[in-house]
Amino acid sequence: MEKEPTYEDVLKARARVSPLVHRTPVWTCRTLDEMCGASLFFKCENLQKCGAFKIRGACNAVFSLSEKDAEKGVATHSSGNHGAALALAARWRGVPAYVVMPENAPEVKREAVKGYGARITFCKPTLEAREQGLRRVLSQTGAAFIHPYNDGRVIAGQGTAAIELIEDVPDLDVIITPVGGGGLLSGTAIALSPQLRRASVVGAEPEEADDAFRSLKAGRIVPAQNPQTVADGLRTSLGDLTFPIIQRLVKDIVTVSEAGIVHGMRTLWERMKLVVEPSAAVPLGALLTKRINLEGKKVGILLSGGNVDLKKLPWTP
Amino acid sequence: MEKEPTYEDVLKARARVSPLVHRTPVWTCRTLDEMCGASLFFKCENLQKCGAFKIRGACNAVFSLSEKDAEKGVATHSSGNHGAALALAARWRGVPAYVVMPENAPEVKREAVKGYGARITFCKPTLEAREQGLRRVLSQTGAAFIHPYNDGRVIAGQGTAAIELIEDVPDLDVIITPVGGGGLLSGTAIALSPQLRRASVVGAEPEEADDAFRSLKAGRIVPAQNPQTVADGLRTSLGDLTFPIIQRLVKDIVTVSEAGIVHGMRTLWERMKLVVEPSAAVPLGALLTKRINLEGKKVGILLSGGNVDLKKLPWTP
Repeated sequence: MEKEPTYEDVLKARARVSPLVHRTPVWTCRTLDEMCGASLFFKCENLQKCGAFKIRGACNAVFSLSEKDAEKGVATHSSGNHGAALALAARWRGVPAYVVMPENAPEVKREAVKGYGARITFCKPTLEAREQGLRRVLSQTGAAFIHPYNDGRVIAGQGTAAIELIEDVPDLDVIITPVGGGGLLSGTAIALSPQLRRASVVGAEPEEADDAFRSLKAGRIVPAQNPQTVADGLRTSLGDLTFPIIQRLVKDIVTVSEAGIVHGMRTLWERMKLVVEPSAAVPLGALLTKRINLEGKKVGILLSGGNVDLKKLPWTP
Repeated sequence: MEKEPTYEDVLKARARVSPLVHRTPVWTCRTLDEMCGASLFFKCENLQKCGAFKIRGACNAVFSLSEKDAEKGVATHSSGNHGAALALAARWRGVPAYVVMPENAPEVKREAVKGYGARITFCKPTLEAREQGLRRVLSQTGAAFIHPYNDGRVIAGQGTAAIELIEDVPDLDVIITPVGGGGLLSGTAIALSPQLRRASVVGAEPEEADDAFRSLKAGRIVPAQNPQTVADGLRTSLGDLTFPIIQRLVKDIVTVSEAGIVHGMRTLWERMKLVVEPSAAVPLGALLTKRINLEGKKVGILLSGGNVDLKKLPWTP
């Protein structure tokens, strides 16, 4: 098992990625504050390059490689955003990227991966199929594997969004992020670790893909079994690197119904005029459907991404 | 006929409205620059209060009224955004608002007008019906009429968006705005009038509602006849106040196909993650479909609003 990244690793990642990625804005909305009874600060990673925070982790990983390790390229499996991010980071570094994707990934994500010049291998949407596909790609190409979340360099990179957020809003009481594989959540917790006495980190996940909630309760990783949720970025399960970090540093995992996720997403579109993907709306969904009470608190929310298939919106038939 | 507003009127409007409305951000997008071969600067009035630039004109008009003229309230006819804006401005001033709306106005716009506390009278979607409805409301209430565009105070207010834009980007070669009744276009032209020797103003309108294009060609107002366009905010025709300003100060009117408008809208959603209404996408639609060639130029684009019925998007069946 790999070593857990430290707070210092997140600061190093920040120095490495900040010349390449956007410093995304932090937005507020009075109407949403009134709806939730709290002061909300939205870190708009939907406006990030590639349309998601994933470029932070991918970029940190790709630029951490030695010349020799990088030259044969990088490879991963991904339902979408990490694949696109890795493809772009590899292009920046000038090395090839290989992405294994489930055949049911949203079209917009497939197009993005292709658009950044990666070579795609499609597989059945199961853990086994994607791992088998990846093994084949790795042995054929000699590329370096960059896991979408269970990788210390990726986790450290994802934590850089929270570093920027707390620079902009230093006195947050809590930061809520969506949780799928746990890369963003664990990176955020490490980024906030020097101040965990006064501030806390909470993960929000779909009820229908509540493996993080159940894993924390059970004290061991309980993988999701082919979960069905509109939040396509959160169907993955925690890894053996993200789980212990989350266990140690994250205060709580809250779960959100499918209707709550769609309500959160629609509210962000209507009120803030922001295109966000379903996964990004899970934290607001938790607040709107009272799965968490943060009355009067200053709350940071990671809007994780904005890559959504505009032809298949969850509120149209 | 009313007097045309001057550049000084726009500056006065700016002082009047700026404590109340947002100074909206100006955004850029490298991908869109590459697609259009120009440097584009988007003034994000979709992020404005009420979700549209209309609050600027409504606010300037309502706060220009004397105490005596304001006390019986304000009234208008509007397909949506001006109605909501007038309702909010009236609420800020503490006077009632009366809005006559066509019964086919988008639900999201009807809800907004209601939400800001205006009293709505619905009418058939014809010019005659809305004028008749308005006359009745005015005679019953004694309210002051604030026309959605053919009003000097409204025109001066709409011009404040361009004042902010050229403060942020002083060396624009051209500003493109959508044109419906011409309030935004004429206000923008007046705001830019001190520098019209080196910079120009262009209006973009739907082919299916090309009354401004035809009016300029004919040298007289040629009203639109029940136009059918996805850009619901641009179905109105020029007024006798906006027409001569546009005739004198605007360089060109370009027209855009329905497909071009939808293409522009979808591109703004996908690439900039911004929810904009169809009307706001007409200028970008003109660039993407080569209705105007601004190769190598610095181009300001007014993203006029973001109030769209999310259940009825033009790219879903």
